[in-house]
Amino acid sequence: MSDRHTQILQAAARLIARHGVRGLRVEEVSAEAGVSTALIYYHFKGRGGLLRHTLEHINRRAILYTDVALDTSADARTQLTDMLLLELQDDPHVRENSAAWGELRATAVFDPDLREQLAAATSRWVDDLAHLIRRAQAAGLAAPEADPEATAERLTALVEGLSERWLSGTTSLRRAHQLLRDAITLELRQPPHSHK
Amino acid sequence: MSDRHTQILQAAARLIARHGVRGLRVEEVSAEAGVSTALIYYHFKGRGGLLRHTLEHINRRAILYTDVALDTSADARTQLTDMLLLELQDDPHVRENSAAWGELRATAVFDPDLREQLAAATSRWVDDLAHLIRRAQAAGLAAPEADPEATAERLTALVEGLSERWLSGTTSLRRAHQLLRDAITLELRQPPHSHK
Repeated sequence: MSDRHTQILQAAARLIARHGVRGLRVEEVSAEAGVSTALIYYHFKGRGGLLRHTLEHINRRAILYTDVALDTSADARTQLTDMLLLELQDDPHVRENSAAWGELRATAVFDPDLREQLAAATSRWVDDLAHLIRRAQAAGLAAPEADPEATAERLTALVEGLSERWLSGTTSLRRAHQLLRDAITLELRQPPHSHK
Repeated sequence: MSDRHTQILQAAARLIARHGVRGLRVEEVSAEAGVSTALIYYHFKGRGGLLRHTLEHINRRAILYTDVALDTSADARTQLTDMLLLELQDDPHVRENSAAWGELRATAVFDPDLREQLAAATSRWVDDLAHLIRRAQAAGLAAPEADPEATAERLTALVEGLSERWLSGTTSLRRAHQLLRDAITLELRQPPHSHK
């Protein structure tokens, strides 16, 4: 992927996180990225293609900063807990990414063009988490009766709900983390130390 | 409240549910409601006032169709379960209302003017649910160790996350209901029949 390509997607994500998707014009992205509108049309065909690629770009960035949880020697339950908590961080890049992602998610309700990609990204996220839940179960760190898919669907949907509350200032980051930790304990039942 | 007032708010909610908030202009609401823009300015001062009142209107409508759960002789646990499930219904009015509410929630991330009202509406919803959880606990229908506020915050945030997935076609209504029912069972522990 060319630098220009990435530069355009970064500019689009920045603008979406700042003002939302709905008013976004290709001209603004061109001004923010410091490239011509012609180049944006060349790379992405038009506004629709630009939005779809921006959604992908934002999703990749979220994977980068949450997969850090997997680069440790921690057990699967700690890894999955950290992976979910890292979705909500007091960091300008994470906040920007979450705001842009939430906005594209909300836009998909009205824009069928974004739905397929949103569904695919959500399903990958759910699968990754379900995989970690299965690993935690195999290691005796999560209740065997927890359904990995349903648990993953609920926990990711909860993260999305809490993320929106955090970004709109309805819930503090600290409170959102606590609610999420407790949800994980309820879903996976026994805390890890009871098995060590 | 005058008929005209309500007519304008219904038109605004309809347009928001159809196309989102961001591109919405007062002129479109005036055309949809069949009233002059001057009348809208007279009633709501401007676009900001109109959005805030529409949020309130949508919230009142949601309370109307979910509070049906309270008009029964069912026990508190059944009432709270139904109240949450009624947020997601295969009904054009509920779908319209949920889409408009989700959109205003997403907009509040970018629009500080809507935040205070969103936070107040969310907090009322959480309080109402926490009250029902306490009633269920008093009746022996919910685990006494469940924290009513935290449980209510999690369940309502989950409903919001699931609602967005339902509206964007990522999750079916049937699946969303099942996930929500199971979340209630995890949060409140013992199912009611174990106490009868």
